Amino acid sequence: MIDVDTLIHARWIIPVIPHSTTLEHHCLVVDKGRIIDLLPIQNAEQKYTGKIVEKLENHALIPGLINSHTHVPMNLMRGIADDLPLMEWLEKHIWPLEQKWMSEEFVRDGTDLAIAEMLRGGTTCFNDMYFFPEVTAHQAIKHGIRAKVGLILIDFPSAWAENSDMYLEKGLALHQSLLDQPLVSTAFAPHAPYTVSDDPLKKIRIFADQLNIPIHMHVHETEFEVHQQQQQTSQTPLERLDKLGLLTPSFIAVHMTQFSDKEIAHYATTGAHIVHCPESNLKLGSGFCPISLALAAGINVALGTDGAASNNDLDMFGEMRTAALLAKGVTGNASSIPAMTALKMATLNGAKALGLENETGSLSIGKAADVVAINLDELETQPLYDVVSHIVYACSRQQVTDVWVAGKQLLKQRQLTTLDVVELKAKLPKWQQRLAAFN
Amino acid sequence: MIDVDTLIHARWIIPVIPHSTTLEHHCLVVDKGRIIDLLPIQNAEQKYTGKIVEKLENHALIPGLINSHTHVPMNLMRGIADDLPLMEWLEKHIWPLEQKWMSEEFVRDGTDLAIAEMLRGGTTCFNDMYFFPEVTAHQAIKHGIRAKVGLILIDFPSAWAENSDMYLEKGLALHQSLLDQPLVSTAFAPHAPYTVSDDPLKKIRIFADQLNIPIHMHVHETEFEVHQQQQQTSQTPLERLDKLGLLTPSFIAVHMTQFSDKEIAHYATTGAHIVHCPESNLKLGSGFCPISLALAAGINVALGTDGAASNNDLDMFGEMRTAALLAKGVTGNASSIPAMTALKMATLNGAKALGLENETGSLSIGKAADVVAINLDELETQPLYDVVSHIVYACSRQQVTDVWVAGKQLLKQRQLTTLDVVELKAKLPKWQQRLAAFN
Repeated sequence: MIDVDTLIHARWIIPVIPHSTTLEHHCLVVDKGRIIDLLPIQNAEQKYTGKIVEKLENHALIPGLINSHTHVPMNLMRGIADDLPLMEWLEKHIWPLEQKWMSEEFVRDGTDLAIAEMLRGGTTCFNDMYFFPEVTAHQAIKHGIRAKVGLILIDFPSAWAENSDMYLEKGLALHQSLLDQPLVSTAFAPHAPYTVSDDPLKKIRIFADQLNIPIHMHVHETEFEVHQQQQQTSQTPLERLDKLGLLTPSFIAVHMTQFSDKEIAHYATTGAHIVHCPESNLKLGSGFCPISLALAAGINVALGTDGAASNNDLDMFGEMRTAALLAKGVTGNASSIPAMTALKMATLNGAKALGLENETGSLSIGKAADVVAINLDELETQPLYDVVSHIVYACSRQQVTDVWVAGKQLLKQRQLTTLDVVELKAKLPKWQQRLAAFN
Repeated sequence: MIDVDTLIHARWIIPVIPHSTTLEHHCLVVDKGRIIDLLPIQNAEQKYTGKIVEKLENHALIPGLINSHTHVPMNLMRGIADDLPLMEWLEKHIWPLEQKWMSEEFVRDGTDLAIAEMLRGGTTCFNDMYFFPEVTAHQAIKHGIRAKVGLILIDFPSAWAENSDMYLEKGLALHQSLLDQPLVSTAFAPHAPYTVSDDPLKKIRIFADQLNIPIHMHVHETEFEVHQQQQQTSQTPLERLDKLGLLTPSFIAVHMTQFSDKEIAHYATTGAHIVHCPESNLKLGSGFCPISLALAAGINVALGTDGAASNNDLDMFGEMRTAALLAKGVTGNASSIPAMTALKMATLNGAKALGLENETGSLSIGKAADVVAINLDELETQPLYDVVSHIVYACSRQQVTDVWVAGKQLLKQRQLTTLDVVELKAKLPKWQQRLAAFN
């Protein structure tokens, strides 16, 4: 018998690799934070002894969900300004609020709220873009969640940095300071084509190559953004980024609601990734990203919620469902984005986009044990014919019972193990009062 | 002091009438099943003594949600055939399964599962269309939920009736038998223009007038349906229904994904209603009902989930969110269908469509006490700036804690009071095995 840290027996396991496979009565064997085996329960009982043995008789295990586009501190602004178009929402509400309240404290409390929400909903990794990223990194490390922290860069001064050189300098220092962290690493995060000029983008391109860091950017979020730049410069934002040499397998374009057949064909040749944020795009009336066409062209498409101020949650179950339903509506083809594809977008495709596919994104031997257990025994997921269908089309995130990141249990029977919910909640009325008074 | 049955103190109350009103620290006073007062808590404490006093300090009260289009027994087929277009889904899966398994027992168990799911999710009234409606009516009465049971009629024989005369006869007998029921009444439910011929529709028109019964029908669900009939008869299904005299304030057209500006303008003059089923329309790739235009034209638009086989849940919180988000996406206008409009569609507009606006749909003095309490103290709905925003955009149905129908508490701290969940669950594996083996 081999001694290991944890054995997780489950009624169903969806490893994501291989595709469309649902294992029944299998055991995930975890040791030193990694998946070391995946085999039928009866075989596991003859081969392994676990310090901890979880028997999840009504549960499905899936890889930890990866939220590939977040602004986690914005959780403090959840629902503060709804039913408004993107530019009015940004210019009249979000930016003035940020101008007034942005601080380390704001970022710390907002990040904690978001991490608690994400873990309770089965998200084990997030790809963030916000100011004070060193605070977000610190909180992610503290609570044990996996993260790509964005090295934000924008042409305008903020409470965090005065100019693009200072953004870059602080970002590179943060990158350096995180090099020995197993779970938290960085991506460059130039905000958007319309807020970042050529010079800092060229520098980012060079550093990204040298340091092997992904570049995470809002691109073609609205038709307005594309037309405005076309009128000003006779090229689309995507053409500009291409000329600047940014479209490589390290590039992650978020939104892409404006994406022609020709652009899709070219983008596919670059190896760059797309993050689809269907609920935010709907809520801001921004348009539809043609993900069925993008996937068919071979582009890797991941999934994100965007910030809680434009969603208004960080619920990757809801996001999978919306992505699968919306693709069918937009194409008129009910076979578009079947449930398994939606689950893959929310796991493996996210890992690929973030350059983490060797670490996470599937329940594969050798990868980190980023694992989510879902109780399917609720009335809302009965009867059960197809586990993946229920996870995408019927399940809610409240059915997540247990979550592990790199083998460490962060949610245990719906209780967070590294975050004090009472203490966290006590910090929120202060922000509610401050922000509401100013809005 | 006046003695009453129940006082419900709540942090927030959204009565829906008047529109866009959120009361704080108010008390809903319930006696003999009806709302008899709604006033500040401090005033209520001086005026009323309740046999039961509920103090809901972190909760919002809303009117019970009205699911205006269901096929409740289809809960037994949740997730049995996904990612397929409407006609293939119907002809190759749903209809053969129904042909094989339709029975009183099927309808009873499926209805119980659906009622349990609806009550746990804050739905207090549903408008159903299915075979063996007397069984659905019986179960609704047994469990205390409000319902409009559809007197199904279709040109084809089924396990319930052999021909249109027999459907009509059995339907009228059921209508007669329910006349003294306070919570359960009927609507005619001719299935769809493409499955019901003129003769039975003319009879239904006459009986509906005489007996004052609404008519509930699938109309213009897909472009295919409209084009096919146009080719065969040179008129659209809607034109045909209009010529048959069906478009009156008693008519409820479900789906309407094909609805031109001209049709909208005419439909508005008839006083007939629309039920929007956004998730089912998306899932089957059926198209988008132009609800923003319909509402602007003065048409009453209610909200429904459709059956759990094409959704795959009966979650009116999800449906409100999808309706609000999708409308913004389709129009490109982020101000379309604000949160309060979505809540109104799911409550008052449903009551109007079903002819129940004097009984339910708002927390108004004189109406039945159909009430839902939502706990907003979860991390997922913090901080809180706008209660209605959170109910529509951030809340999940699991945050529903208590539900009353006509003053009787059917969900108490998330426990059903009239349904035995253990007994219900024990009946489901049998159906799972039968249906999976045949599919």
